[in-house]
Amino acid sequence: MNESEGQFGAVRASFGRQGLMATLGAELLEVACGRVCIGLRPGVPVSQQDGLVHAGAIAAIADSACGYAALTRMPEGSRVLSVEFKLNLLAPAVGERVEARAEVKRSGRTLSVVTADVFAVSSGREVLVAAMLSTMIRVRSVTGEG
Amino acid sequence: MNESEGQFGAVRASFGRQGLMATLGAELLEVACGRVCIGLRPGVPVSQQDGLVHAGAIAAIADSACGYAALTRMPEGSRVLSVEFKLNLLAPAVGERVEARAEVKRSGRTLSVVTADVFAVSSGREVLVAAMLSTMIRVRSVTGEG
Amino acid sequence: MNESEGQFGAVRASFGRQGLMATLGAELLEVACGRVCIGLRPGVPVSQQDGLVHAGAIAAIADSACGYAALTRMPEGSRVLSVEFKLNLLAPAVGERVEARAEVKRSGRTLSVVTADVFAVSSGREVLVAAMLSTMIRVRSVTGEG
Amino acid sequence: MNESEGQFGAVRASFGRQGLMATLGAELLEVACGRVCIGLRPGVPVSQQDGLVHAGAIAAIADSACGYAALTRMPEGSRVLSVEFKLNLLAPAVGERVEARAEVKRSGRTLSVVTADVFAVSSGREVLVAAMLSTMIRVRSVTGEG
Repeated sequence: MNESEGQFGAVRASFGRQGLMATLGAELLEVACGRVCIGLRPGVPVSQQDGLVHAGAIAAIADSACGYAALTRMPEGSRVLSVEFKLNLLAPAVGERVEARAEVKRSGRTLSVVTADVFAVSSGREVLVAAMLSTMIRVRSVTGEG
Repeated sequence: MNESEGQFGAVRASFGRQGLMATLGAELLEVACGRVCIGLRPGVPVSQQDGLVHAGAIAAIADSACGYAALTRMPEGSRVLSVEFKLNLLAPAVGERVEARAEVKRSGRTLSVVTADVFAVSSGREVLVAAMLSTMIRVRSVTGEG
Repeated sequence: MNESEGQFGAVRASFGRQGLMATLGAELLEVACGRVCIGLRPGVPVSQQDGLVHAGAIAAIADSACGYAALTRMPEGSRVLSVEFKLNLLAPAVGERVEARAEVKRSGRTLSVVTADVFAVSSGREVLVAAMLSTMIRVRSVTGEG
Repeated sequence: MNESEGQFGAVRASFGRQGLMATLGAELLEVACGRVCIGLRPGVPVSQQDGLVHAGAIAAIADSACGYAALTRMPEGSRVLSVEFKLNLLAPAVGERVEARAEVKRSGRTLSVVTADVFAVSSGREVLVAAMLSTMIRVRSVTGEG
């Protein structure tokens, strides 16, 4: 077991404590070293005014995916908080499933930089609907920074 | 009635169609020319792993507030979509209520630039917990852009 | 002399060491607690293809202004590096002078969040041409982060 | 000759008119369909206070690279302006050369979303020093937007 594998359980446990992910019906689809994928089912509960998936729901799964991707690269016992993120919306988010796939670009001692591509998946066809570029911070206590 | 007042009803109607706002329990607290405020009650359904309000929930109300603030400055019949936004998390979001207060910085023919400050409000005391800088686009149909 | 005044000299000395500011002809116009203003004269050396001030030149003075605004709020002996910034271009940057006015939104132990508004100034008339939202980090050594 | 090749000459001509690129000593290293690379030589004229390449200089070449990458995918006669960009600084920018490599993520009728990775190159070794996520707009006149 390498270092990052020790963090995979921490990611799954933390995801389970995110009330918002349950509220949105989001699922943790993949956890690997430096990479996390979270999925969401489009529908009225996560929609904006035109029935598309709301940018806030996309931001939520992309932000969680980025944070957990960063966490897989941190030492055991670390915790992660979002410093900031930017999300570009590229195409209408509709379909059977929306997936945010995050990948760490740089894992530093304190800060990590993570990107996420968000795809709408329907009948095996994928469309890129959003892109995130984010900064995550390793913390020792909830109130320690951000 | 000035031009923007004609858009206030459009904002309220559109907000009512955002399934995500209902799911999050968000409320439209203020609609004025170039300014919109949306509130959220912290709690498990909108939480991240430490019980704070999830950055995605903050992004959701801030994004909606920014979009509707832009809409108040657009001609009647316009629709608005998010092009992109950036959110900085500044302090733990806890308390009785979280409020995203958006204000238009520039309203262009096609694009608008809008900022939002997000406050945690408890017993009348306010703490700035997040800041958004966003770009919104005026569209004529959902699939028309971007 | 309050704490921040002790940092004003540090800001001026550091600005003097930024080769890029000299190359661009930028001037440090104001240093106050949590606020810094840097000016630039539009012209061919800082232009993009249409003769407007290049977004990169605007980013340069806004980034320096944000970093130094953060530095005024840090303990003496601190150094500052940019973690990230976002810049929105709002209107063509032309005129007699362009000024980036930065103001700290939150000064944390490690991270600071700073905004800057950039104005084109001509014959006393000001037009908002850009807006920045940035994250700065306090460091003890150049290679220490981020 | 495919459509995008017709734009390559337009990119080279436009780059030649960017006064800032000449001031910074930047070079247009590659123009391909949806991809542009611009290089810069580190040194005092583009430095920040510690002798590293200033984030503003990095932003300048990354922004130009993103804009021109978008332009290669636009119809002939189009012009491009920056709507906004976000830049994350990941590691100290030093070395023999800094290269901003931009690639279009989505090319829309009006808006394009483009990413750039910026590398410090020394003796054939590359280090990722910055990452940009940007929005570009196709315009017909300088003052037409944005």
